[in-house]
Amino acid sequence: MQFPELPALAEPQLAARVQHALDHKTKPLGALGRIEALALQLALIQGVERPAMRDPQLVVFAADHGLARRGVSAYPREVTPQMVANMLDGGAAVSVLARQQGLALTVADCGVDAPLAPGAQDLRIAAGTADASAGPAMTAAQAARALHNGLALVERLPGNALLLGEMGIGNTSAASLLMQRLTGLPLADCVGRGTGVDDAGLARKLAVLAEALAANASAQTPLDVAAALGGFEIVTMAGSVIAAAAQRRVVVVDGFITTAAIALAEALRPGVLAACVFAHQSAEGPHARWLQRLGVRPLLDLDLRLGEGSGAALAWPLLPAACVLLSDMASFESAGVSNREP
Amino acid sequence: MQFPELPALAEPQLAARVQHALDHKTKPLGALGRIEALALQLALIQGVERPAMRDPQLVVFAADHGLARRGVSAYPREVTPQMVANMLDGGAAVSVLARQQGLALTVADCGVDAPLAPGAQDLRIAAGTADASAGPAMTAAQAARALHNGLALVERLPGNALLLGEMGIGNTSAASLLMQRLTGLPLADCVGRGTGVDDAGLARKLAVLAEALAANASAQTPLDVAAALGGFEIVTMAGSVIAAAAQRRVVVVDGFITTAAIALAEALRPGVLAACVFAHQSAEGPHARWLQRLGVRPLLDLDLRLGEGSGAALAWPLLPAACVLLSDMASFESAGVSNREP
Repeated sequence: MQFPELPALAEPQLAARVQHALDHKTKPLGALGRIEALALQLALIQGVERPAMRDPQLVVFAADHGLARRGVSAYPREVTPQMVANMLDGGAAVSVLARQQGLALTVADCGVDAPLAPGAQDLRIAAGTADASAGPAMTAAQAARALHNGLALVERLPGNALLLGEMGIGNTSAASLLMQRLTGLPLADCVGRGTGVDDAGLARKLAVLAEALAANASAQTPLDVAAALGGFEIVTMAGSVIAAAAQRRVVVVDGFITTAAIALAEALRPGVLAACVFAHQSAEGPHARWLQRLGVRPLLDLDLRLGEGSGAALAWPLLPAACVLLSDMASFESAGVSNREP
Repeated sequence: MQFPELPALAEPQLAARVQHALDHKTKPLGALGRIEALALQLALIQGVERPAMRDPQLVVFAADHGLARRGVSAYPREVTPQMVANMLDGGAAVSVLARQQGLALTVADCGVDAPLAPGAQDLRIAAGTADASAGPAMTAAQAARALHNGLALVERLPGNALLLGEMGIGNTSAASLLMQRLTGLPLADCVGRGTGVDDAGLARKLAVLAEALAANASAQTPLDVAAALGGFEIVTMAGSVIAAAAQRRVVVVDGFITTAAIALAEALRPGVLAACVFAHQSAEGPHARWLQRLGVRPLLDLDLRLGEGSGAALAWPLLPAACVLLSDMASFESAGVSNREP
């Protein structure tokens, strides 16, 4: 499969110019902490000295999972289409937050096991993946189509920022499988309680996921891993992330499942990580470890574990704030403020 | 001095009703983490089931400090009026953020050592405090006037939220002195690098602050402590915090210096803390420890150490977000979404 080339997302001369501008703003050196680092990153992603966020797009990638029939979730499978409808009706957390913060909301049905909901984008591959505990979750052709769908979706979206969301009962299981295979960490370190399984449910989830890894032991290349262990929403999202990075869009990553899409995208097209702003550290146990592995620090740490893109939406205002601080703050010279005593 | 009575800011029946509403929203129980706790706190402060933020006011309390003449800061004393002018001209970080986020910005001159800047509110007590290393920073009458000014200022402000900011070269020193006297912790645990003093500067700061504590050893009641060790901006702010809590306004606390005002206000009128949302944990060393002592957890941790109210402004969007999630999210019942399997 052919992926688009990435531009240089860390041009050193631009970085030096932006850092110089930040260092001469009317504040003690570095006093805006990680907001300064964020402003610099946004400048490098956009390739300009004064980045600005325009027409941000929040996309919820939704799909069902064959694994959910194995009892890995605290919620029944029909919740996926119910929540898709709730998102489109405006009652889900992500709908409320998107509306309030001026984020355009798209719900992309990548393979929900129910008729297409009115208002959802049709990126359907099939009515849910196959049961990964018995073999690949999807065929290689389905994975390629999902990646292509994700790439094409971003081509159609306006703006210069893509906020990632997802919905799919069972998708923390798919994310855990991807984490295990992509990082090599022990499975137990990659599994959390998802929407809230109890101890017995967690033990069952671990056993089912161990079966899935065994059933897909031969899948080792990124494309094979995507097909064997991915969900349609995660693989489609990975395609969108690659397209967004190639077009210098800022990618705002939500929680554990969207991080799986990022890790998959980075394996498929190394370098996309530079275009990603990690919104928050989820309360889903393995998320913190995965972020550490990726070498990234999220903006928020608010014990969120909802998904949907809710964390991305909550962190969003920090991005335009970082931009205006860089563009609009006075310098010591322009404001006639004395700098530190020599 | 007579302070206004506080309303009940933690009514248990209201708390139960709000918690019930949160628990029946279309999300796994508790999945919005600390945003749910924030929504509950805002409801309790306002005394309603559906809190809403209205016409938020960011007030920068500015003043000069006699201690600054002792070389406790990395910046010269004239920076206070220069930064006040920069704030009013729109070039300071807090000005940029307030403008972007729709926060009304007031700069209250509580005692800057320079003529009143055009556009600043005149709450001036004197041209800077006296040198606290040689005796009380202000007289008891000045402290009472500052508290009164702060109370009266809030009476004049519209809206139901007060975001705290401050400016004053030397004011981390005053905050450190207040922290030591109010908590009883060792002085070294209460002192940080402020705007960025080097090791020698930090040693000098510690020595000067030890002198100030010795020179004001007899000040032990909250009012005496305020006068002996406070800055005009900190004491005025404490008055504003008491007025805001009495009027069920939400108080958004910025960093180390505004935390000093909160601790002082809580000592003067126990209970105000319940009206306070702590925006962020500052990179100023002792701040984390003080928050822990107060038993509060801030929303953000972004290595900020600018003050001005910049952290309060950056955290602000989380408050209206918490409100709309509580008021606008669908319930399982209203959205027809299946809840957990029994």
